[in-house]
Amino acid sequence: MSGVKTVFEPQKVVLIGSSKIREKVGMASPQLFKSVIYNMKKFFGGKTYVLDVNGKAGYKKLSKLPEIPELAVIMLPSKQSVEQAEKCAKMSVKALVIITGGFRDEQRQQLLKIKEEYGTRILGPNTIMGVINTANGLNTTFERNVMPKKGNIAVISQSGGVGACLLDWACFYNVGISKFAFVGDKIDIDDVDLLRYFGNDRRTKVICLYMEGVKEGRKFIEETRKIVKKKPILALKGGTTRESAKRAKSHTASIAGSDEIFDAAFKKAGIIRVKDIEELMNAAIAFSKQPPMRGDNVAVISNVGGPAILAADAVARNNLKLAALSEKTKKRIQSLYPGVDATNPIDMIADARAERYSKVLGLVLADKNVDGALVINMLKSCFFEPEDAEVIKKVAARYPNKPVVDVPAGGEDFTLVYEVLGDTSIPLYNLPEKAVKVLKFLRIYAKIAEKH
Amino acid sequence: MSGVKTVFEPQKVVLIGSSKIREKVGMASPQLFKSVIYNMKKFFGGKTYVLDVNGKAGYKKLSKLPEIPELAVIMLPSKQSVEQAEKCAKMSVKALVIITGGFRDEQRQQLLKIKEEYGTRILGPNTIMGVINTANGLNTTFERNVMPKKGNIAVISQSGGVGACLLDWACFYNVGISKFAFVGDKIDIDDVDLLRYFGNDRRTKVICLYMEGVKEGRKFIEETRKIVKKKPILALKGGTTRESAKRAKSHTASIAGSDEIFDAAFKKAGIIRVKDIEELMNAAIAFSKQPPMRGDNVAVISNVGGPAILAADAVARNNLKLAALSEKTKKRIQSLYPGVDATNPIDMIADARAERYSKVLGLVLADKNVDGALVINMLKSCFFEPEDAEVIKKVAARYPNKPVVDVPAGGEDFTLVYEVLGDTSIPLYNLPEKAVKVLKFLRIYAKIAEKH
Repeated sequence: MSGVKTVFEPQKVVLIGSSKIREKVGMASPQLFKSVIYNMKKFFGGKTYVLDVNGKAGYKKLSKLPEIPELAVIMLPSKQSVEQAEKCAKMSVKALVIITGGFRDEQRQQLLKIKEEYGTRILGPNTIMGVINTANGLNTTFERNVMPKKGNIAVISQSGGVGACLLDWACFYNVGISKFAFVGDKIDIDDVDLLRYFGNDRRTKVICLYMEGVKEGRKFIEETRKIVKKKPILALKGGTTRESAKRAKSHTASIAGSDEIFDAAFKKAGIIRVKDIEELMNAAIAFSKQPPMRGDNVAVISNVGGPAILAADAVARNNLKLAALSEKTKKRIQSLYPGVDATNPIDMIADARAERYSKVLGLVLADKNVDGALVINMLKSCFFEPEDAEVIKKVAARYPNKPVVDVPAGGEDFTLVYEVLGDTSIPLYNLPEKAVKVLKFLRIYAKIAEKH
Repeated sequence: MSGVKTVFEPQKVVLIGSSKIREKVGMASPQLFKSVIYNMKKFFGGKTYVLDVNGKAGYKKLSKLPEIPELAVIMLPSKQSVEQAEKCAKMSVKALVIITGGFRDEQRQQLLKIKEEYGTRILGPNTIMGVINTANGLNTTFERNVMPKKGNIAVISQSGGVGACLLDWACFYNVGISKFAFVGDKIDIDDVDLLRYFGNDRRTKVICLYMEGVKEGRKFIEETRKIVKKKPILALKGGTTRESAKRAKSHTASIAGSDEIFDAAFKKAGIIRVKDIEELMNAAIAFSKQPPMRGDNVAVISNVGGPAILAADAVARNNLKLAALSEKTKKRIQSLYPGVDATNPIDMIADARAERYSKVLGLVLADKNVDGALVINMLKSCFFEPEDAEVIKKVAARYPNKPVVDVPAGGEDFTLVYEVLGDTSIPLYNLPEKAVKVLKFLRIYAKIAEKH
């Protein structure tokens, strides 16, 4: 098993910390240690050993363990972390996750030397939250009981804070995750290693990446070009201005580079760039559930007029097209529902319920002029009931090559429809503009997959 | 009392509908009638009469009422609505809200004639949801129990659907509303009438406007220029492309005009344009709670690195500046907290709690180089506890001329801090980018208020 794979799929793990040491400024603390132990014991399906370097929480020395674990998770101040890393390497532990930060350059060099001498792979230091694998329950975070549901979205975050925000977002909004990697200072295992691993991971369908900088640009581009043939990579880049890039450098010791260079690099690499955390999650959900969009033509089907107009505006703004429905489709719709004007965006009127949605969506998706559909179904000011939304899933399933996204626009309306469709293959968004944007990303990826 | 004022502040209201008529395609139905009666009886502080034109739900004729109400809410099919409107006008009812849609041009002309002959002011037809006034409990919507909390944000929506979405959003996210107006076809009372009324309404601090078109552009610009001296107007424009504008025309019978013309008109009028419903609500919340921003210089204070970098990126993207803190401020911060680098954006490190937030925010707001502050306080991956957020409100209150916005980034983290600060003067956003955008709007309005 490769070292990177060991980080996510170990059978046996040792947690190395202290029930006594508390850093004044820094992460190492008895509480953090306890919380990681708690999560691992609660979620991890393999064997978890605890090594308490100067306390009573578990074993006192690595050599006392009945067997050698493949993975060690280290959460000590920098000096002790380096010491423990070396001991692990000598005992043939295959991989290390170093949670704590505040390492000096010299200490980073020491870690690198350990890696070179013993072949031990290292994630970190300064990963803050380490790794999560929802398949085997591996969870080295210190947020008690924070575990996203199983799914096919992998996340790589260079920043502990952005990663924690993504994790919180995923848990709160019930987004299905395959694996989470907090990479920190990237002295050894870097984005490319992780992208390659996730690229081959059959449980991962789409990869999300938060990055502030990259060390070997050319290698990064070459490797990602191979991966995006198989699955989409979405990237959020932090440090896009001179000032914030400077800050990013001190934050995760990475060279940020100018924003234009990154833009060009992402394009060349076939990576889809997003502009904030919500866009990243929204796009990931769409890719995790729906196919790429094979053409520009979007049909909008709604039970309200205004939000459909806002959707149509967004279609144009995002360089997509409002599908021109065939005369046959229009005639069929208008003969079924004489009050409905079947010009796209289609306002099916406030009294539309399951039957009308089912028939009109079916006719629209069957139209060869349509590449994808955006459905709006509001409850407020309309007769639509949450359970009516079931038909959207059913009709969409008959057209597996055309993406369908749903917009129960608003606050409560969104949550009520989410209860019906949230766990299905239909992605839901609370505003039409957000749904159009994900259709744009589904369209962009179709082009990337063709080209690469 | 002017007719427009009567629409929002009547003492006595008559609801005119039918417990029998159900339109095949259209809004009129016994259920809608019942729901409006339910809401008015539940929320309205004045007197509510019910007139059931062909059933037993209340009085059978207007002339049988013991007194003449000032306002009539009509929810009948178009033909009967016109008949009832005329009867009301003859009985000196001062204003009408016409809920139902589907009026032909000829019928709109008849309504206009009634207005001209009797001076009766008319909101609608096709308002769908009519009006809400949280101060007196007036609520003519047919969504049972949907009533936003009292506040100082007024909303005008040309579209029933967008209005319903805004209403749902406001209720779900607990946004404080003064008044809601669904304007529909605008045959009489139009945006200008409503803006003028809200401009003078002491309970309204900021006005939100969803519009698809305007009839008298010059008058609209002249009037709004006067109002924006007193309070900000935020506008979301639907129908920005040729195709969607065409749809908007059939939707609310308005002339949409080209998007560039509207952009120029909004600028001239001193109206702040937003790009979606969330941006509209986010900006409104900021204006309802915080002062305009008198300069471009934003300080970012955070307990996590990555999200602070994303905030800094957004500051640049939104044409604001990262404040250059004075040497004195930096020295004070660094002497208090030696581990903290006091360069803006300030990463106060994951163990920052109430005391550090209080001191650093106080020092930053006291700095004359700072015009506003964006605070980020994540819980996940940090030591911050929700109740620590109290200090943000306290410190911000000492600097009433500098806006402060707070970002508990993420999902659950946001809701936990919302429980502490949601009902206070501090606006909360779930991502740094959204908070920066509202600071931009607070800055734009400061410039508008100076100029106009």
